[in-house]
Amino acid sequence: MLRFGFTIASILLAQSTIHAQPLSSVLISASKNINVGEGQLFGKTLTPDCPTPWSITLKKLHGGKQEGVQLLTLDNGKMKITLVPTRGMGVLNVVMGDLQLGWKSPVTEIVHPKYVNLQLRGGLGWLEGFNEWLARCGLENTGQAGQDEIVNNVGDKATVDLTLHGKIANIPASEVVVLVDAKPPHRITIRGIVHEKMLFGPKLELITELSTEPGSRAFRIEDKVTNKSSQPQEYQVLYHYNFGRPLLGDGAKLHVPVESVKPYNANAARDVKTWNRFAAPKPGYVEQVYLIHPLADEAGTVSVLLHDPKAERGVLLEYAKKQLPYLTLWKNTGADEDGYVIGIEPGVSFPNARKVERKAGRVPTLAGGASHTMRMDFTVLTGDGDVSHAIDRIRDVTTRRDEKE
Amino acid sequence: MLRFGFTIASILLAQSTIHAQPLSSVLISASKNINVGEGQLFGKTLTPDCPTPWSITLKKLHGGKQEGVQLLTLDNGKMKITLVPTRGMGVLNVVMGDLQLGWKSPVTEIVHPKYVNLQLRGGLGWLEGFNEWLARCGLENTGQAGQDEIVNNVGDKATVDLTLHGKIANIPASEVVVLVDAKPPHRITIRGIVHEKMLFGPKLELITELSTEPGSRAFRIEDKVTNKSSQPQEYQVLYHYNFGRPLLGDGAKLHVPVESVKPYNANAARDVKTWNRFAAPKPGYVEQVYLIHPLADEAGTVSVLLHDPKAERGVLLEYAKKQLPYLTLWKNTGADEDGYVIGIEPGVSFPNARKVERKAGRVPTLAGGASHTMRMDFTVLTGDGDVSHAIDRIRDVTTRRDEKE
Amino acid sequence: MLRFGFTIASILLAQSTIHAQPLSSVLISASKNINVGEGQLFGKTLTPDCPTPWSITLKKLHGGKQEGVQLLTLDNGKMKITLVPTRGMGVLNVVMGDLQLGWKSPVTEIVHPKYVNLQLRGGLGWLEGFNEWLARCGLENTGQAGQDEIVNNVGDKATVDLTLHGKIANIPASEVVVLVDAKPPHRITIRGIVHEKMLFGPKLELITELSTEPGSRAFRIEDKVTNKSSQPQEYQVLYHYNFGRPLLGDGAKLHVPVESVKPYNANAARDVKTWNRFAAPKPGYVEQVYLIHPLADEAGTVSVLLHDPKAERGVLLEYAKKQLPYLTLWKNTGADEDGYVIGIEPGVSFPNARKVERKAGRVPTLAGGASHTMRMDFTVLTGDGDVSHAIDRIRDVTTRRDEKE
Repeated sequence: MLRFGFTIASILLAQSTIHAQPLSSVLISASKNINVGEGQLFGKTLTPDCPTPWSITLKKLHGGKQEGVQLLTLDNGKMKITLVPTRGMGVLNVVMGDLQLGWKSPVTEIVHPKYVNLQLRGGLGWLEGFNEWLARCGLENTGQAGQDEIVNNVGDKATVDLTLHGKIANIPASEVVVLVDAKPPHRITIRGIVHEKMLFGPKLELITELSTEPGSRAFRIEDKVTNKSSQPQEYQVLYHYNFGRPLLGDGAKLHVPVESVKPYNANAARDVKTWNRFAAPKPGYVEQVYLIHPLADEAGTVSVLLHDPKAERGVLLEYAKKQLPYLTLWKNTGADEDGYVIGIEPGVSFPNARKVERKAGRVPTLAGGASHTMRMDFTVLTGDGDVSHAIDRIRDVTTRRDEKE
Repeated sequence: MLRFGFTIASILLAQSTIHAQPLSSVLISASKNINVGEGQLFGKTLTPDCPTPWSITLKKLHGGKQEGVQLLTLDNGKMKITLVPTRGMGVLNVVMGDLQLGWKSPVTEIVHPKYVNLQLRGGLGWLEGFNEWLARCGLENTGQAGQDEIVNNVGDKATVDLTLHGKIANIPASEVVVLVDAKPPHRITIRGIVHEKMLFGPKLELITELSTEPGSRAFRIEDKVTNKSSQPQEYQVLYHYNFGRPLLGDGAKLHVPVESVKPYNANAARDVKTWNRFAAPKPGYVEQVYLIHPLADEAGTVSVLLHDPKAERGVLLEYAKKQLPYLTLWKNTGADEDGYVIGIEPGVSFPNARKVERKAGRVPTLAGGASHTMRMDFTVLTGDGDVSHAIDRIRDVTTRRDEKE
Repeated sequence: MLRFGFTIASILLAQSTIHAQPLSSVLISASKNINVGEGQLFGKTLTPDCPTPWSITLKKLHGGKQEGVQLLTLDNGKMKITLVPTRGMGVLNVVMGDLQLGWKSPVTEIVHPKYVNLQLRGGLGWLEGFNEWLARCGLENTGQAGQDEIVNNVGDKATVDLTLHGKIANIPASEVVVLVDAKPPHRITIRGIVHEKMLFGPKLELITELSTEPGSRAFRIEDKVTNKSSQPQEYQVLYHYNFGRPLLGDGAKLHVPVESVKPYNANAARDVKTWNRFAAPKPGYVEQVYLIHPLADEAGTVSVLLHDPKAERGVLLEYAKKQLPYLTLWKNTGADEDGYVIGIEPGVSFPNARKVERKAGRVPTLAGGASHTMRMDFTVLTGDGDVSHAIDRIRDVTTRRDEKE
């Protein structure tokens, strides 16, 4: 394979003389008509005082449905976090040695949106490209496919057919920029902007930032959704975080303080007693979904822990309940070849059809120009006692609630 | 940004020795397997005797949904006219100093058709890519989305779901060639060919020519639609010319001699007395549409004038009524962020659903091999008295008609 | 046109030292992240002992809807066989002097799947890209568009809307490799892999091999469809081999031993007596389709011959009836400009809607991990007596059957 390569660092350094704080490098920009295509950027050049070697790599994929897709990998010296600018800034996976946040989907290629017809098979086309660790659902709608009622461009009521999990995961990012703090600890941020806009329809903007520090086992995802219209606009966001092996396995478990857990389908109801425990792959397993009202701690934070069968390794997710009030658990522990996976899905809604969620008061509206911000902090747990400490903290939240009642 | 650039002029000069009259340069050709990608062509090289410097620039866009779109700008030394070969030879805008024919759509990128699913939201996907000054509607259908009855491939009646404004604006041009008259005044023509063809469906070809002279404030769009089938074929074309600021503003006005004006929707009916006057942006404004039977002058020409609030600047459109019998006015003067815009839309039909138009006798049919040509002449009015002179001429047409009656 | 070109042979030679048997060259690979783009490979370099000069050429198409499509031409010194990796490894045509297997569709460009919306016009979007000699229909469904019932991801019955002729012809190949036997007769094989996979839907893999020998008038297509799921999966495959001039013409004829021939539509019923004879182009001709149960010879082989009006030239197709039990004949001998063509279509099903075929027991199921292989051998007949010899052989099959009864 012949390929054109160059170093983004030169651009970045040139820019860094102008914007000393932070260093910034534009990788993709529709407004500036830029797409650097492929390239690498090295910490040793940009932050020579940083003892941890880190890098950022942008590359293009080839072959089949992934032809032309761009992958952006942030290696902070401890973890490699791979984003997909071409697919709405989804996160393909987070790799730390033999530990991975992510899963093995039957969809093995990173599918270019040009090959995804969201309306196929009754609005389920989204499933032809689904294989990321984080696939965002939204922004106009976030849940099941189906018809909903809207007011159309001439002021009449009309029906609109919404597709499963919305459009945002299949819209290429319009702007992608890397920001690096010039001062220690040299926090590295990848900022992307994705537009979900049309005439006579939603004019929603997603600004997403994924950031971490060199050498850290933690990273943050912070999203801001803005209604760019002058008029009020409904919106929905749901974070479809998906986990397969090695965290998932027979005996893996989810810990989250809950107010209530409600099974979504018949299979889920049957197994509600083991709702937060995961089994080995079972060929022909039919998915189970649970709708959760989580319990926040006194600071308003929801903590969610997933740990592996031995309770040795795990991932801790922390976020403000005010920003993401609802949590969905998707258990889909079928055969490996069919996608052995669970989903942990905080959202502003549950993944019901929008008209169902609206009736339940779970479809928020943004006034013209208004925004909603959602911040999620992830920590990969690998050391002695990390997991048990997190379990204790989560148990404490429930205990305190019970004491109050 | 690194980019491959070269001069088309060399190709053009090489060809010009063969085809002395006119000079021609192929930019895109499916039949010859050519796409030059990017490049520039200069008048000083091609027409050294021409005192006005002119140029043609082909460039590629990057980032978001515009990745891979090609823009073709004809700068005649007075105006810059930008066409979009990737989007059916639509015209993005015409810029002359601070005067612009065009508008600011909430869709800010020039969207590649690969990202447009015309069937989304009940056949309204077209609106996800709509931001040109000229977006052609057609060729199989031109108006509202909806079902229509056809005869299918086995001779039975069947329903077909047509999408809003048809396909042609989202089909990339198969052939794009620049033609330059070797002799003064060196008329420059951009010719594009767009195919809307399928088995067991329409086999329609659009040949479109946009032409102007160096230094001129006028340009012409001349389209020929041909039925390449052996069998009769219905077709529809509507020219969606869209205007925002600076021509549009509080007090801007449309002048056109009319036989009749019919409001299309309830809002339009309410405001029918001010149908041809435009207001300042009003957040939440619901579009108003008027269906117009224009009045031609004695030569058969319809003249349409749009002028700015001060009646100082404007644009005059002239065309043969026989070629484009119906005229639609679209008023959509909502907030700037929602698309402050009006549309002046001559067509062979009104933009009703095709079955409505057919019933009214406004869906023409082309015999096998037959063509229909539509020519539109535009003049940008900026000088002293330009606008008032055009107003007088248009008033005369109405006056003469009234005298006859 | 400027274009980047290079010789694949260098890669291939480098590899050939490792894999001595056979020589192999990877052209496209999603798993290895490779797409060589364009290039050529020559027999004189790879098989210097082969007296017949052969070559393989990969090129990219430009302009209109074919922008970015890759064509792969295998020239065995006698025939040029052109495959379309971007369109599911379809075969555009087979050219041998002035003889061609293929047809002239009204769709003249080789359409990139990114421009094909299979759901357009009630599921007939497939017809916007249809112009190959071989367009595979399948793999989830193969026939008419329409709704069918499935079991969905939560175990409930649901309807799914299937599109005409399925997806496989509009999915780009994920892997394309050239294999050349190092030993005489140096059989050349082009192997492609196409995935039709999604979560909660089919996980089908097509491995297709087209092979021939230098200097030969024969070639083979051998396909293997594998169910990569753990669960049983229905599938359908139909080979849409299409012929126009010069084999098709007034007096051209199809010879195939039959158990039964059933007209599919009213027009076909009317002309059932001449079901296997073809007429000159007739503008406005409405397609006729015949559903055939072919008769195999004692070895289980079905032989199908199409010969030209003079019975001088033709093509012979041979395959195992067990692999492809049903045969469909599509007569569409309309005007040249509308697509003068017939289709010879062996399949595991007839092209009825899937629910119709299922009811008739013609929708096979693959167990988890199971495969089905289909092999078709083609011989181009040009010499003295080739055609009459084939006619005799086919007549013998019928005669022997009749003698047995």
